[in-house]
Amino acid sequence: MTPRGSYHHGDLRRALLAAAVTAIEESGPAALSLRELARRAGVSHAAPAHHFGDKSGLLTALAIEGFDGLAAALTEAHERTGDLREVGVAYVKFAVDHRAHFEVMFRPELYQADDPQVIAARERAGSVLSGGVANLPAEQTGGDPLPAQLAAWSIVHGFATLWLGGVLPEEIGPDAEAAARSVVTLLFR
Amino acid sequence: MTPRGSYHHGDLRRALLAAAVTAIEESGPAALSLRELARRAGVSHAAPAHHFGDKSGLLTALAIEGFDGLAAALTEAHERTGDLREVGVAYVKFAVDHRAHFEVMFRPELYQADDPQVIAARERAGSVLSGGVANLPAEQTGGDPLPAQLAAWSIVHGFATLWLGGVLPEEIGPDAEAAARSVVTLLFR
Repeated sequence: MTPRGSYHHGDLRRALLAAAVTAIEESGPAALSLRELARRAGVSHAAPAHHFGDKSGLLTALAIEGFDGLAAALTEAHERTGDLREVGVAYVKFAVDHRAHFEVMFRPELYQADDPQVIAARERAGSVLSGGVANLPAEQTGGDPLPAQLAAWSIVHGFATLWLGGVLPEEIGPDAEAAARSVVTLLFR
Repeated sequence: MTPRGSYHHGDLRRALLAAAVTAIEESGPAALSLRELARRAGVSHAAPAHHFGDKSGLLTALAIEGFDGLAAALTEAHERTGDLREVGVAYVKFAVDHRAHFEVMFRPELYQADDPQVIAARERAGSVLSGGVANLPAEQTGGDPLPAQLAAWSIVHGFATLWLGGVLPEEIGPDAEAAARSVVTLLFR
């Protein structure tokens, strides 16, 4: 076990991000403070500020990590199946498995949304979804790319948000991926 | 103008709810306190507790007001048009026009989600959407009501959430209703 305060540089950064994820899962991003984060990670008060500057910098790092992870998950689903529906299912699975990242990513007022790494990772994730929509036959999408892209994004984002909010009916069962698959199948039939 | 502290009973309750809406629009529900609410409404510290008990009671009142308003908006759209797509557009319009209510309604961990008035109002809103889906021909919905209802709910909830989050591309324009209409039209074609 690593003694407190003896992290290597990259390890401490990762440990602070992991502690932030746990804190956000428990109480949401609003309640998070760098001081609390230092306490959780068992490091000095100065460590989070050294790595992230301020809370906005920390949440920017989480947003980058989140959009990177989402882009990787969507790309993997696309390459594995070539099926836009499975890309949608992967979006929901990412959200369910990374609740804290997902919550931060889509609250751009909390972080530096114009950070170049945020923009690049967000566009990489978006392009998998919009590329998949663009490859569908026009008779399925209505031929106008923007509404079709927004519809695909809305249905998976909405399902993920309702699932994470715990407001879906019980009869849907415990398997978010299976439920998402039955839902996304109804778009672009 | 009503002098501070001289509200009639129902007026003070309404003033406190209105002050809560403004506070939540500014800083979200997590930051809200009954003390801050009393300060905003210009009444004694005891007044919010007298009307709502605690913060959870206040947010329960907001959730009831929200689901009541959503049910009324969806019912109006259904009766006016008989078109499920317009019910979906009304869902988005309600969310955009009542950002604070919408945020609280779908975070049931913040309030007493098993309150009978919450349940009744939520079911009233849900039944307009699910009734509209049930009336569609089976070849449009796939014939299985639950996934079809979830798809309809997901697409409008997702669009509203992404719109409110300010993350949609600029080319979508400033008219949430028109954009929502172009999106919901793509489900159940």
